[in-house]
Amino acid sequence: MKNMKADGLSINLATVRQQFDLKTGVEACLKHGITAIAPWRDHIQATGLREAAHIIHSNNLKVTGYCRGGLFPAADAAGRQAAIDMNKEMIDEAAAIGADCMVMIGGGLPPGSRDMKGARKMFAEGLAAVLPHARANKVPLAIEPLHPMVAADRGCVSLLCEALDICDALGEGVGVAIDVYHLWWDPNLERDIARAGARVIAHHICDWLVPTKDLLLDRGMMGDGVVDLPGIRRMVEAAGFHGHQEVEIFSAENWWKKPGDEVLRTCVERYNTVC
Amino acid sequence: MKNMKADGLSINLATVRQQFDLKTGVEACLKHGITAIAPWRDHIQATGLREAAHIIHSNNLKVTGYCRGGLFPAADAAGRQAAIDMNKEMIDEAAAIGADCMVMIGGGLPPGSRDMKGARKMFAEGLAAVLPHARANKVPLAIEPLHPMVAADRGCVSLLCEALDICDALGEGVGVAIDVYHLWWDPNLERDIARAGARVIAHHICDWLVPTKDLLLDRGMMGDGVVDLPGIRRMVEAAGFHGHQEVEIFSAENWWKKPGDEVLRTCVERYNTVC
Repeated sequence: MKNMKADGLSINLATVRQQFDLKTGVEACLKHGITAIAPWRDHIQATGLREAAHIIHSNNLKVTGYCRGGLFPAADAAGRQAAIDMNKEMIDEAAAIGADCMVMIGGGLPPGSRDMKGARKMFAEGLAAVLPHARANKVPLAIEPLHPMVAADRGCVSLLCEALDICDALGEGVGVAIDVYHLWWDPNLERDIARAGARVIAHHICDWLVPTKDLLLDRGMMGDGVVDLPGIRRMVEAAGFHGHQEVEIFSAENWWKKPGDEVLRTCVERYNTVC
Repeated sequence: MKNMKADGLSINLATVRQQFDLKTGVEACLKHGITAIAPWRDHIQATGLREAAHIIHSNNLKVTGYCRGGLFPAADAAGRQAAIDMNKEMIDEAAAIGADCMVMIGGGLPPGSRDMKGARKMFAEGLAAVLPHARANKVPLAIEPLHPMVAADRGCVSLLCEALDICDALGEGVGVAIDVYHLWWDPNLERDIARAGARVIAHHICDWLVPTKDLLLDRGMMGDGVVDLPGIRRMVEAAGFHGHQEVEIFSAENWWKKPGDEVLRTCVERYNTVC
């Protein structure tokens, strides 16, 4: 389509994870004029850190985020230490690829636990433990509140206001990722994004489908669901964030089955028409 | 099992909706010592209001709630009026069966709408429109916040704090139903239940399964999931509610497929052991 711009658009490579690895994903993005990406750790590990950094830097790519750290809650001290070590390694990788931030999710309840408060405490403690390393490497940590439907097994931090309380406690070097999929329904979203202000360091987009058939892998393309994308973007910009909108779509039965070029073309089109 | 008591236990008949109608459901409950139920409108309509009221009163049953009204958001004025009319009829039915309250859910976005704020406004306006009729009939209205995963298509009121704001605006005759399935994950739950105080007029129980395979019909039996049921009950009682715990389980692939007697026996057992 004519007059379609990709300035300000970033592609989280999970969106095309079944179609491309880092190298082919970058090539495909560039073909569509997309010069910003967000890779996952498995992309970097499959390619090798050195080669990954080369691909990213030689193509002058912006990296809007590195996915995904956090996941600190664990059943015992050894598990918690392993999560801290993993996050420190990821911070090194994020620095090597020049990521704007590293995305941190809460993690779920340890096996057999019903103690959400305890899980949240472990998340905050883990974050505090890796923060000096993140600061030293100039990698901002972006807490991403996840939808309450994955609170038990994936993200014990659900509300933006919770994430901001953790930010307030930890100080510099920690911000939030506003993912519309997780937060669109929150009646306090406008209030809390305004409170976030300069803490907003990432903005992820996709759409909420009606009906949604899977709790994890049925995210929609922008425009195909009920999220007021321009409305949330206005809140995010009013808070002072004018960075990229990063498309992150997990879609096992639809977009992951389509040709990657079609997915990327559709992302650019929808970014221009509905975001 | 011995020494199992059903005092304080109520069965929402949706839990055994595939096994029993009102009459056979009541008979089965009584056999297990359960003397409190919560029927849905389809139970009452299939039986006839007069006969339903007779079954309930002649067996001296407590009715912990009548399901479910609300659902006020609609695409046009005619749709909104139809919802108001439907709710007024249900209030009459709730009065006829002596229900402790009528459960009110938000309803979803009207077709094509992305305006959650507008949907919430329509919900509050609809509630205000039927409230005088509810007061005149002495039927308390219990706003039930629903899990954010059904915000788009079923319940635009997600958080307890939202429901309490509506209560505050409307005054006497409106309270809240605390359903652990919808609210267990909320980091502000203890704060908001305390705020609710005497507004708590119903307490629904079941469990959140890991993994959850369906957004609507995969609720778990108490004890099979991650909800801290005794912890939430303590909050509810601290707020001043000592009424029944009402089991409401939608379980298409598990409990709806088991013999109704087994389901009820399990409800009594778990009520005694994990709630």
